[in-house]
Amino acid sequence: MRMYDIIDKKKKGLELTADEISYVVDGYVANEIPDYQVSAFLMTVYYQGMTEKELSVFTDRMAKSGDMVDLSAIDGIKVDKHSTGGVGDKTTLAVAPLVAACGGKVAKMSGRGLGFTGGTIDKLESIPGFQTAIPEKKFFDIVNTIGLSVIGQSAEIAPADKKLYALRDVTATVDSIPLIAASIMSKKLASGSDKIVLDVTVGSGAFMKNAEDAIQLAQRMVEIGERAGRQTIAILTNMDVPLGVAVGNDIEVIEAIETLQGNGPEDFEEICVEFASQMLYLGKIADLQECRDMVYDAIETGKGIEKLAEMVKAQGGDESYIYHPEKFEEAPYQKKLIADQSAYISAMDTEKCGKTAVILGAGREKKESVIDPKAGIRFYFKTGEYVEKGEVLAELYASDQEKLKDAVKYLKTAYQYSDAAVTPMEEIIGYVTRDYVQQRIIE
Amino acid sequence: MRMYDIIDKKKKGLELTADEISYVVDGYVANEIPDYQVSAFLMTVYYQGMTEKELSVFTDRMAKSGDMVDLSAIDGIKVDKHSTGGVGDKTTLAVAPLVAACGGKVAKMSGRGLGFTGGTIDKLESIPGFQTAIPEKKFFDIVNTIGLSVIGQSAEIAPADKKLYALRDVTATVDSIPLIAASIMSKKLASGSDKIVLDVTVGSGAFMKNAEDAIQLAQRMVEIGERAGRQTIAILTNMDVPLGVAVGNDIEVIEAIETLQGNGPEDFEEICVEFASQMLYLGKIADLQECRDMVYDAIETGKGIEKLAEMVKAQGGDESYIYHPEKFEEAPYQKKLIADQSAYISAMDTEKCGKTAVILGAGREKKESVIDPKAGIRFYFKTGEYVEKGEVLAELYASDQEKLKDAVKYLKTAYQYSDAAVTPMEEIIGYVTRDYVQQRIIE
Repeated sequence: MRMYDIIDKKKKGLELTADEISYVVDGYVANEIPDYQVSAFLMTVYYQGMTEKELSVFTDRMAKSGDMVDLSAIDGIKVDKHSTGGVGDKTTLAVAPLVAACGGKVAKMSGRGLGFTGGTIDKLESIPGFQTAIPEKKFFDIVNTIGLSVIGQSAEIAPADKKLYALRDVTATVDSIPLIAASIMSKKLASGSDKIVLDVTVGSGAFMKNAEDAIQLAQRMVEIGERAGRQTIAILTNMDVPLGVAVGNDIEVIEAIETLQGNGPEDFEEICVEFASQMLYLGKIADLQECRDMVYDAIETGKGIEKLAEMVKAQGGDESYIYHPEKFEEAPYQKKLIADQSAYISAMDTEKCGKTAVILGAGREKKESVIDPKAGIRFYFKTGEYVEKGEVLAELYASDQEKLKDAVKYLKTAYQYSDAAVTPMEEIIGYVTRDYVQQRIIE
Repeated sequence: MRMYDIIDKKKKGLELTADEISYVVDGYVANEIPDYQVSAFLMTVYYQGMTEKELSVFTDRMAKSGDMVDLSAIDGIKVDKHSTGGVGDKTTLAVAPLVAACGGKVAKMSGRGLGFTGGTIDKLESIPGFQTAIPEKKFFDIVNTIGLSVIGQSAEIAPADKKLYALRDVTATVDSIPLIAASIMSKKLASGSDKIVLDVTVGSGAFMKNAEDAIQLAQRMVEIGERAGRQTIAILTNMDVPLGVAVGNDIEVIEAIETLQGNGPEDFEEICVEFASQMLYLGKIADLQECRDMVYDAIETGKGIEKLAEMVKAQGGDESYIYHPEKFEEAPYQKKLIADQSAYISAMDTEKCGKTAVILGAGREKKESVIDPKAGIRFYFKTGEYVEKGEVLAELYASDQEKLKDAVKYLKTAYQYSDAAVTPMEEIIGYVTRDYVQQRIIE
């Protein structure tokens, strides 16, 4: 087998065999195929796409290039959740306790990533004493005992993806839907859960800017999951505005706590209830409507917040922060963004909102960057709302006054206004499963 | 400027600026841009093509990556000729003397290449004593004195092309028409001639298998030439059968001699007369019809063969071989391919004919291979002719009996037969200049 022939075959639009696909992935990981051939291959995939069979084998080989996590020591059906990313995405912090409170199991290994804010792990580390590096056995025990645990990734998950992603990142081959799908799903397959709920975000703050692309990505990911024997459902959610009102680390933990207490922002609560319900439903806890009722009940009765406190305690953290979020110290500097006109907010460039958080120090610019847990933004108005001139649009937090100034100036450019009322996108845009695509709204 | 952005821009179908194109070529030659980015770039060019402006700058930068040959020491208009390659292509050997005999100037620097037989230089070296490595000054003097000289390339011509071609060759990006056009034309522009006549071959023995692709390639090459201020014309010629009847080295020199004496195969004579006439016409010797008359006259009067003998003498060769081609020794072994049926030859896979020559030892399999000047094939029947069972289809020559056996067996598979008469393609299929495409026949 020769890499040249494989590139040429793909270039001609022919379907590659399982052996050929394996040859590419295995050969690249083993440093037997040079970068320049793989980059030509990736570029031809950008144009030609991948068939269902090709993508399935491609993702499988990537998953199997590293450790395949075995969660069988945990009882019951393990359901994983993954988001394609966005601004203000603290969903796991609220969803995992809700699922556990309703009898589901969440064994989540999370990465740190290069998002607009820290990852779930970074956010949990805002809680004094919280341990994210825990031996596997203890991790399993915690999940078996209290129903949830979130730890940092220790296993070597899908090194092929890491290597391929690094190459895509310098050869302008990142924005290929099958390659994105394979990258995400290879890590999910390697992480060992039985079933997967995907949050595919859509809009100005998401990687997928429109519903059409998001549906395609969702379909390809569901297809990969199902072909690998893992029941998978994708939910398309609105990322045309930040999720909730808080973007940062400490303040997102606080928002998750408030939501578990029934005092969270409406949009974020809707998302959390839906994801928790779908995870419980896939975990065969009950039928979907029953699951939704259970989740609302877990919020109302405080069972959800108790689960979060249990997990914090089990992982060495100070659980008093959960019941007294006012214990989180505030950032040394704050600055308000004031509305300079009376009008409806017709759009928010959510990517700019995210970049503002990075300027403030809430996210990593490089792998080595240190996150400032206190930095962030609270939004008081979002798309569709009417703001009066002089009202506070948003409040920004930082540990550095210079950064704060730059951030306020930059965030101002994220807003668009209109004299006429505008209807924002719904929070949940649609559902994609193996058999159907159900869209509630397509913008 | 970042290579990433250039790849991404091209990928999105946008036109690159002259600076961006220069950045790619110059940066690659200077080893500042890695192979893996250039191969992704080449693959995106494969899909997106290149605009006229992009291709013009791309080719210009490739040409200027090495020596730009200065032919100004030679009087008159220098017209170069280039063929995209084929089987039995000994055209330069007959055309250059005909042009010189009619008052034109041919200063040709030729490479060796990896064709089905040796290049023009290899063929000339079949003549005892013939020198192809000659100092520049002497080369100019010979052209000024007798009107022609053919030597090996000494200058470093278009190293960017060499480097890019090597990468294309391993990344399945060879078969891109703009990249092929740039590769050929960068070398032509660097070689210093004022005007260029291109022989774009079409058919089973050519790189371009159909007239449509060949016309496109011709158009792109003419466009590059004209934008660089070099008048360029392309002639599309039939390579669906071998050119002439001889394929090899010694035997092609003999066929060129016979053609200059008026005893050559009809198809080859037609091609030679047309190319010589077009070169003279571009060289402003006379109008096209007059040029054609002059060329026929040069054959009839023996002025063409005299010019070949003069060049051989001037470059240290034994000119008696030109007047007595029987002096070329025959190959130690011969074998006849006998027709096993009575029928019309409906097609000859000309690439297979070429590969047969390589098996016999007439061409190089690798750069290091040594050519056997005596090896080759003479075809006694070609496409469209009726052959009786038992007649000799072709005669094969080699210095090795094993190779001869393999070659006969392989050549047999190149023929297709039909009971009905078939009309082969004409020798000259069409003309492409800056302003028009004139096709005589499209298959």
